[in-house]
Amino acid sequence: MHGTKVRVVEDALDANNTIARANRDDFDRHGVAVVNLMSAPGAGKTRLLERALADLPGVRAGVLEGDVAGSFDADRLSLLHIPVTQLNTGAGFGGECHLDANMVRSAIPSLPLDELDLLVIENVGNLVCPAEFRVGEDARIMVCSVAEGEDKPLKYPLMFRACELVLINKIDLLPHLDADVDRLLANLDAVNPGVARMLVSARTGEGVGAFREWLTAVPARVGAAA
Amino acid sequence: MHGTKVRVVEDALDANNTIARANRDDFDRHGVAVVNLMSAPGAGKTRLLERALADLPGVRAGVLEGDVAGSFDADRLSLLHIPVTQLNTGAGFGGECHLDANMVRSAIPSLPLDELDLLVIENVGNLVCPAEFRVGEDARIMVCSVAEGEDKPLKYPLMFRACELVLINKIDLLPHLDADVDRLLANLDAVNPGVARMLVSARTGEGVGAFREWLTAVPARVGAAA
Repeated sequence: MHGTKVRVVEDALDANNTIARANRDDFDRHGVAVVNLMSAPGAGKTRLLERALADLPGVRAGVLEGDVAGSFDADRLSLLHIPVTQLNTGAGFGGECHLDANMVRSAIPSLPLDELDLLVIENVGNLVCPAEFRVGEDARIMVCSVAEGEDKPLKYPLMFRACELVLINKIDLLPHLDADVDRLLANLDAVNPGVARMLVSARTGEGVGAFREWLTAVPARVGAAA
Repeated sequence: MHGTKVRVVEDALDANNTIARANRDDFDRHGVAVVNLMSAPGAGKTRLLERALADLPGVRAGVLEGDVAGSFDADRLSLLHIPVTQLNTGAGFGGECHLDANMVRSAIPSLPLDELDLLVIENVGNLVCPAEFRVGEDARIMVCSVAEGEDKPLKYPLMFRACELVLINKIDLLPHLDADVDRLLANLDAVNPGVARMLVSARTGEGVGAFREWLTAVPARVGAAA
């Protein structure tokens, strides 16, 4: 029975990858670089985007906002006067705990791709399943809040391995936590040695400049800029 | 296609509920009350258990520890000298993001049910799927850290509706956060009006006494005590 289950899961992931490639072709055709932003609930993805996308020099950015329900984050990001599109997994997708390529494909007609250089897809808050489903992105970023504790890379290794950049957020809280950031970084290196990482605080803005530079460079790096 | 998907999901949940009832019968036969403890990653489930189960008067407690990978939390809880059993979803269950009734059923032969009055099942850290799968429990508790922000009940309503008790944890951090705990509680009441809630800090121990009393009363309340 487990063998059957594994095969069904593999078939589903194969089908997902086929659709992800179709998404990627569409993004490439319009010259849009795509970032998949993932984290646990409440790690600070939206607040980081509020900080970083408010002033992204020379790059036209937009957001595809993934949530089970509601449009709370999309409403916040719309205040930046950039294109923001809501994608709810509870609307026709069974309330899934992650975005997959088919959901993102369903949103493509609603995206103003000709007006964008960079699309940030903010995934559902979850450290497990989002890492398993490519959606057609060029790069994957995950945010880990120091308030979640230093053991998270060891407990959710697939997520920490899937990313090109790890943002260690809420460092302004470090004086008030028992968490040891050096041990967190050592645990990160244990599962994804040498992966790019930045220490940031979306609340104070510390380190957000470096993240903004990284985002700004994505279109040129992937050759997507028109 | 969506209709088919919904039917498959409903069938899977029906099958899960059948197995959950079988688990429940086994737990009842041994006079064990069962609590399903859920939260986002890093909300403090394990630390709350370290505090609460260290001194549970008159109740023999044990833990079934659910994780995708590793036994970090089980190792910590074993120091309490109570029975702790590890259940990994990555071992034969495809790395699932939640526990289901079948996984818990597979662990029952490893549980010392005759030695327990109360079994706490610590679920995988995730605010979506764990709420959909009963595992044979008598009560469901969820932990929400104030560091996750005040909007979580609105974004993950199913989880907050599924529980008999909500623990608002890490209140020692409130002076260092922008989070408004009154708004968090109002959002909680918006999705689950009047649900029992406790403000706690697993770090300082504040409020943990009330949680310990609640846990202590579970076996008598559900009539499970031998």
